[in-house]
Amino acid sequence: MLIDRLYNAVQEKSPICVGLDTRYDFLPEYLKNSEMELWEKIFEFNKKIVDATFDLVACYKVQIACYEAFGLEGLKAYKETLEYVRSKNIIVIADIKRGDISSTAKMYAKGHFSGDFEADFITVNPYMGFDAIEPYFDYLKTGEKGIFVLDRTSNPSSKDFQELKVNENSLYMEVAKKIEEWGQEFIGECGYSLVGSVVGLTYPEEFLEIRKSYNKTFYLIPGYGAQGGTGEDLAKLFKQDKCAVVNSSRGIIASHKGLCETEDFVNVVREKTLKMKEDILKWL
Amino acid sequence: MLIDRLYNAVQEKSPICVGLDTRYDFLPEYLKNSEMELWEKIFEFNKKIVDATFDLVACYKVQIACYEAFGLEGLKAYKETLEYVRSKNIIVIADIKRGDISSTAKMYAKGHFSGDFEADFITVNPYMGFDAIEPYFDYLKTGEKGIFVLDRTSNPSSKDFQELKVNENSLYMEVAKKIEEWGQEFIGECGYSLVGSVVGLTYPEEFLEIRKSYNKTFYLIPGYGAQGGTGEDLAKLFKQDKCAVVNSSRGIIASHKGLCETEDFVNVVREKTLKMKEDILKWL
Repeated sequence: MLIDRLYNAVQEKSPICVGLDTRYDFLPEYLKNSEMELWEKIFEFNKKIVDATFDLVACYKVQIACYEAFGLEGLKAYKETLEYVRSKNIIVIADIKRGDISSTAKMYAKGHFSGDFEADFITVNPYMGFDAIEPYFDYLKTGEKGIFVLDRTSNPSSKDFQELKVNENSLYMEVAKKIEEWGQEFIGECGYSLVGSVVGLTYPEEFLEIRKSYNKTFYLIPGYGAQGGTGEDLAKLFKQDKCAVVNSSRGIIASHKGLCETEDFVNVVREKTLKMKEDILKWL
Repeated sequence: MLIDRLYNAVQEKSPICVGLDTRYDFLPEYLKNSEMELWEKIFEFNKKIVDATFDLVACYKVQIACYEAFGLEGLKAYKETLEYVRSKNIIVIADIKRGDISSTAKMYAKGHFSGDFEADFITVNPYMGFDAIEPYFDYLKTGEKGIFVLDRTSNPSSKDFQELKVNENSLYMEVAKKIEEWGQEFIGECGYSLVGSVVGLTYPEEFLEIRKSYNKTFYLIPGYGAQGGTGEDLAKLFKQDKCAVVNSSRGIIASHKGLCETEDFVNVVREKTLKMKEDILKWL
């Protein structure tokens, strides 16, 4: 089952999820100056990063917004990137945060769990409730697809709605409860379900509270470093079990900028990934 | 300003928004059997519908999920459809319901307010708060782009979160309040702002409550007919002013199925659009 593969990758390699949120600016100069078409440059950049890091990480997350920004050509790079990661038998999370219902959500499911843009996991938005989740279940039933539902994001204005008090709880605790419920049918041998949750590490105490209440939910933690959260915070969460993947995007894939603009940029990227791995593991 | 153009189109033509949520099944047999490539068939279908209805309607809404389902080829049809509607100087709403923050949302803004997928309005999801809204403001400042924010959707499970009580109000009333606030900087001559709201007509009394509290917000009403809501309900909302566009997708663009499978399908589609117009206007 997919969640077992992800869980095992976390235990065996590391909880690192490298975010391929590729901006054109991140490309080293030698690639920018090459004769390739735009989509090829972006894909080549991603491919080199994957080649340099896949033995160290649990999975990759691809932020589709970065590719939609370049229209059809960007989405060609997106397609090639997903295919490449999957061809190496590494799990890829499509960070698409789609949130729509019924037959529309079924179209998203088809679009992102099969065909050109096939990913292993996708991220989804819960604002419309269960109708925005259930349409993915046909794919989850195969055991080979999963979703991560936005719960508690780490951006400053997440307080606008997520922190509002409902039923003596914060809204994000209500969402966390639903996420755990929705996952009941899809629990793997590892004890976690194919319905994961996106929770930022900005407020570690809150995270521990969610984790304590809902222990069948696997987490995707965005913005390691950049959005707060340290290896020490993570250690508290991982005390009983390594129940999350931790994403870093810019911190890894732009780490070479200003340091190395040649093909050797991958060495800096690999070093940075190793450093993140150490930074996490030293606390465990 | 874009919101004035939309407002005027509603007053002069009708509040109808035709949803180009095109499924392959909707295509008349003559198109399915043609020699065209898939993207051309889908685009040709949309183009014919636009040609047959544009003098009757305020705008079109294109549901991107239907196109993402077909990968790159589907998105080529999406691009061509947006370009075609805009080339006729008709407003097009990209129903993308994107919800992400900061630099990621900026990438969505670039992707959907310029380039291949340029639309006039896009729909967005508020779950992450203001950080998921503000990145679009650079485009709104031009006066020629706008957003519709999900507020109160009409699907059964919208109750999961939107109806939860916060601050003695329902969550959707809190969201409605924010939407009105966010729009303050972008109010047109018509008195409405470029930050619109998506509210279903399933619960007309609720809608009147929202409208009463927040009267600078223009509405996008999904699922006329299919998701409840009648011309009579709409009349109550429009009593003081026609402050919304009303979407119908399947009810119009699949109206020919089983009746006409030739090029003449557009006659059925036009008839159905005229009927919807009558059904709305007879109450006003």
